[in-house]
Amino acid sequence: MEFKVKLLGIRAGGKQIIVIDDEYASRMGIHSSDRVTIEFKNKKIIAITNVAKDFPKKTIGIYEEVQEKLKVTEGETVKVQAAERPESLGHIREKINGRKLRQEEIKSIILDVVERHLSDVELASFVTSLHIRGTSIDEVEGLTKAMIETGKTIDFGKSPILDKHSVGGVPGDKTTILVVPIVAAAGFTIPKTSSRAITSPAGTADRVEVLCPVDLNFEEMREAVKKTNACLAWGGALDLAPADDLLIQVEYPLSIDPLLLPSILSKKKAIGAQYLVVDIPTGRGSKIKTIGEAQALAQDFIELGKRLDIHIQCGVTFGEQPVGYAIGPALEAREALLAVMNKGPIDLVNKACSLAGLLFEMMGIENGEQKAKKIIQSGKAEKKLREIIAVQGGNPKVQPEDIELGKEVAEARSKESGRVQWINNRYIAQIARAAGAPKSNGAGVLLNKKLGDKVEVGDVLYRIYSGNKQKLNVAVRLSEKLETFGVTGKFGEKMLVDRIPTEKVSYEKPFVLER
Amino acid sequence: MEFKVKLLGIRAGGKQIIVIDDEYASRMGIHSSDRVTIEFKNKKIIAITNVAKDFPKKTIGIYEEVQEKLKVTEGETVKVQAAERPESLGHIREKINGRKLRQEEIKSIILDVVERHLSDVELASFVTSLHIRGTSIDEVEGLTKAMIETGKTIDFGKSPILDKHSVGGVPGDKTTILVVPIVAAAGFTIPKTSSRAITSPAGTADRVEVLCPVDLNFEEMREAVKKTNACLAWGGALDLAPADDLLIQVEYPLSIDPLLLPSILSKKKAIGAQYLVVDIPTGRGSKIKTIGEAQALAQDFIELGKRLDIHIQCGVTFGEQPVGYAIGPALEAREALLAVMNKGPIDLVNKACSLAGLLFEMMGIENGEQKAKKIIQSGKAEKKLREIIAVQGGNPKVQPEDIELGKEVAEARSKESGRVQWINNRYIAQIARAAGAPKSNGAGVLLNKKLGDKVEVGDVLYRIYSGNKQKLNVAVRLSEKLETFGVTGKFGEKMLVDRIPTEKVSYEKPFVLER
Repeated sequence: MEFKVKLLGIRAGGKQIIVIDDEYASRMGIHSSDRVTIEFKNKKIIAITNVAKDFPKKTIGIYEEVQEKLKVTEGETVKVQAAERPESLGHIREKINGRKLRQEEIKSIILDVVERHLSDVELASFVTSLHIRGTSIDEVEGLTKAMIETGKTIDFGKSPILDKHSVGGVPGDKTTILVVPIVAAAGFTIPKTSSRAITSPAGTADRVEVLCPVDLNFEEMREAVKKTNACLAWGGALDLAPADDLLIQVEYPLSIDPLLLPSILSKKKAIGAQYLVVDIPTGRGSKIKTIGEAQALAQDFIELGKRLDIHIQCGVTFGEQPVGYAIGPALEAREALLAVMNKGPIDLVNKACSLAGLLFEMMGIENGEQKAKKIIQSGKAEKKLREIIAVQGGNPKVQPEDIELGKEVAEARSKESGRVQWINNRYIAQIARAAGAPKSNGAGVLLNKKLGDKVEVGDVLYRIYSGNKQKLNVAVRLSEKLETFGVTGKFGEKMLVDRIPTEKVSYEKPFVLER
Repeated sequence: MEFKVKLLGIRAGGKQIIVIDDEYASRMGIHSSDRVTIEFKNKKIIAITNVAKDFPKKTIGIYEEVQEKLKVTEGETVKVQAAERPESLGHIREKINGRKLRQEEIKSIILDVVERHLSDVELASFVTSLHIRGTSIDEVEGLTKAMIETGKTIDFGKSPILDKHSVGGVPGDKTTILVVPIVAAAGFTIPKTSSRAITSPAGTADRVEVLCPVDLNFEEMREAVKKTNACLAWGGALDLAPADDLLIQVEYPLSIDPLLLPSILSKKKAIGAQYLVVDIPTGRGSKIKTIGEAQALAQDFIELGKRLDIHIQCGVTFGEQPVGYAIGPALEAREALLAVMNKGPIDLVNKACSLAGLLFEMMGIENGEQKAKKIIQSGKAEKKLREIIAVQGGNPKVQPEDIELGKEVAEARSKESGRVQWINNRYIAQIARAAGAPKSNGAGVLLNKKLGDKVEVGDVLYRIYSGNKQKLNVAVRLSEKLETFGVTGKFGEKMLVDRIPTEKVSYEKPFVLER
């Protein structure tokens, strides 16, 4: 049936959506969320229908995404037809009903995700059923491969390619900024891509951006890797696994993360990684709570690595407090720079060197951690980081004191004396975000005490940094409300751990979707 | 933060959606699908955010639904803030993770459904988890009560109120058009509301509309019931259980129906039903395949009825072929009128009388089915139906031959001889829809043979009616392709029932969402 085009002049967040009136929709047997094909000249695309009451008859309302594909203008005539339900929808339904999917079925789903043939309702149902039904290792493999095949890949013309990844969940984890120059300084190639924060106070891309631009394209990445053996790039705009980026958009509001493994490994494979060390921070207040969980996840990583031809080693790391003292992009960049200059906090240096060491051992080098430490102590890691900063367009001479922090600072002091028995990672992250991180990059939290430290009443536990008085106040109020630090004489003396109120309160763990 | 209003001038299908640019969204910590509160003068509403790239900065794009609630005009300033995640979302997440929900948790979800505080992604995930995790009878009760409490109810000032419902799935099921006048003619009150077809060739409202208007408001329903003890109204615009209407919009594209019981019984309770007979058509080609399934469903109906103070009896009926011979609104209205005039097909009359009989027996009348038959034979049922037609604004003198059928007719003839061993309900429905039903109300299929009938090669099996030559041709081509009738000498002689092709073909059972 022919329809006259009405340009709506707005974007639909990347979705291919059109609007038609209910009368004609009904005549064509089209319901809301049904797919239609739209033909204009030689172009034919599939879009998802919104049926609207009171919309002009025989008129098709077109969002900008559709307009760009069809190159149609206001008032022109297009041919609209009900499209067949995509085959992938049948496979999604089978997954809902508990059947394991075969590789080509998964491929057809992921292809339709990337082509925007599936509606939000269908995507949400798919990720919900993946979460509830679980995914077999075969399905995980299929999902990963499909995500790679539907995205771009990059060949650096070097071998072997090393890489490092953290499953995330611990604030202040700037380890990557050390691992990459250590590994590259040893002569290995490590083209690292990272993400920005979604729900955390800083992602690695946010941290590195304090030192140099991270928004590299493929050519710039290749150039950086050619000159320095490494890069510290933001992976978000590279289209390495676009299906994952689209699925995250429905996972995030639902607070579920059934695609953790495919999401991570598809992006690693896309940049050609052959040797990968995966950091699994573990413990209370971390994404992974127990060593048992960490081991199960590590087994999945290793098995999936075999199927993808990536050698994987997993490091289970202590995740019960922030890494180092700094949380927030600029604070963390400064701390990382200090650490690479051999002036860093011991836990950060140990973590970076043990992970770099695992990579070295995979390459046949003995005592990897010792080698990594020597690379820091010798100044080679610092030199390499400055090379990377330079090639990405930053100031290679940057000093820690050059990095600007938020001008507004408040102190949180202890009301008790004893030792720091626990630090609530989540609350620290919330306070840093309230202060403005990651958007306002000078904002964040700088710890003054860590686990096991002695504390007197009135001692500063941490300082809150913000670029803006108002945000600082919000963060301070939050800090006063939350039990961020546990300070007592002896751990375990305070016996009442929690009290469940009779009145139900809405107490919900914030969802962390950082990989 | 203050934003300038840009009216988008289009509807979002009832959803409360706004659009803001990515930069300011990010500054406010708002992601796509997050909720915001919008304040304007004394009004404050919650809407769901679409984050758009290239949208004017500090501008809020407003769909008509939001505009109507806020009464805001172009260029005015509104205050936008990130809203807290509704508590109901935590409950949805608990359901995703397999916990049974308590009554007040369900209430908070259904309230947020009706208030439009939940996005499509969240609704889709909720119905998917209901489908996968299942619902306990307590949850079904909670869902039903919440749907009633969030909708309108109607009091007819009469008692007892009787009602009849079919879970659907069999084409040509015009039984309601007989049951209602039979019951009302016996002096009982039966204010029947019905739905239109969603995926079938005709719903009861579509059939009745051939005889008289069905789009009654509460006042008109009360008037009809006062005068005739009955009505045959379309329930869709009465807002009896608006949550159900909204949830169907996501169930339909997913082809899942986890809310069957709450959907049906909330609407019955809303009109005050106290005695209800539920028809469960059962058999191959029907929604419910086996007597065992039918019994389990019946038990749920009866138990839920007890909790809602509705006396329920269930009738399991033969569902392996269409009811009567006619499929399609006008064809069925004609057949129903003939049947109520005592000239109808025996299966239709038997079905209607046995269901009406169950209601009579619930009211303490013995031999209910016999009584129902006498009401037809005596002409009282016809008289009552004509009263109902008159009070709803139709022509009470309408004769079967007055009802206009599609002018274009084609015949489907048998290529084999023997007896009719099976009729494929689904294919019959598809052909009727291809011919134009239910929109074009004269379109449909009129069977000439039914199960057990003797057939010679060349005999007419059924006729296809359409208002339009082109649609007729589509229906005929479909009819030639589908094995609609099984004609063989002896059932079971043809041993090869199906052949699974080596090449996978997309073969998917169409989803029926008719209640």
